[in-house]
Amino acid sequence: MRDDGGWRRRSSRYLYQSRWFQVRQDEVTLPSGSDIVYTSIEHGGYVVVVPLLDDDRVVMERVYRYPLGRMLLECPSGGLDGEDALVAARRELEEETGYRASHVERLGRFFGSSGISNECYEICLATGLSADGRIDREETEQMEIELHPLESLRERALRGELEDGPSAFALLLAWERRRT
Amino acid sequence: MRDDGGWRRRSSRYLYQSRWFQVRQDEVTLPSGSDIVYTSIEHGGYVVVVPLLDDDRVVMERVYRYPLGRMLLECPSGGLDGEDALVAARRELEEETGYRASHVERLGRFFGSSGISNECYEICLATGLSADGRIDREETEQMEIELHPLESLRERALRGELEDGPSAFALLLAWERRRT
Repeated sequence: MRDDGGWRRRSSRYLYQSRWFQVRQDEVTLPSGSDIVYTSIEHGGYVVVVPLLDDDRVVMERVYRYPLGRMLLECPSGGLDGEDALVAARRELEEETGYRASHVERLGRFFGSSGISNECYEICLATGLSADGRIDREETEQMEIELHPLESLRERALRGELEDGPSAFALLLAWERRRT
Repeated sequence: MRDDGGWRRRSSRYLYQSRWFQVRQDEVTLPSGSDIVYTSIEHGGYVVVVPLLDDDRVVMERVYRYPLGRMLLECPSGGLDGEDALVAARRELEEETGYRASHVERLGRFFGSSGISNECYEICLATGLSADGRIDREETEQMEIELHPLESLRERALRGELEDGPSAFALLLAWERRRT
């Protein structure tokens, strides 16, 4: 099978555009010759940061998520838009938590919901942390900072008890990097 | 902080509605008193199945993803819409791969992109597999079946080399369940 699937886009229009994401509707001809309409989300991607203190605790956020109507325990994260993930990781970490990192490295990259969206998550590990940064949150970023041991977060992730998927996966990658 | 964040929805309208997802735009008053517009995706959720053969290989799919314009290696998955995850897991597994499972269990549940969407992933492990089911794919489901050892998939997931995030996370949970 061809890696590009043999799908042919005939037309494209935006149903919605914003600073955060776009909704694009395409007319597409499938390899079989059938014509379909495919509507998907265009997104600039995210960086997810695991900020690891020297005592192996992680700087986590309990953050209000309007689409769910409640708080979730998450790693610091933020939107990308063509920006370098390591630069964005440092900025989001400082703005959301007040921590600055002397070292940031990439752990991996994954797609989140590839049937309807191109959104991509860059996972980073931040170490050499100091709490001397300046918090600068947007009005919609309602959160409280919590410090949790990496080992206990890993156990909760492996039991399927951390509700934010990108954070749970990021914590497992960070634990593995720490181990090796 | 209140778990509901204190956000108050004043109005709601749909910008887009389909069988797969909706785009909803709300007028919201924040706890500070500011009025904002929040646009988000409503989605019925997914089930992600790790189908594990008796020899510890996993039934994977190399599937064309139009939003990315290429193929990804993934676990079988499908949309939910109020449906029981275990029922959907059996159906999607058979329709996509031709395998039937004598046992299906839940491994966990996570949110995928909670800043802009309510989409939720139910992760299931399917065992006791037999290849005597009937493949019944939709025209847009272009895929090839590949069998990979769970251990090698786990290693690739932990190195950040499996590009589909929900699949990578599901494989790590399955490996953990198998181990314990």
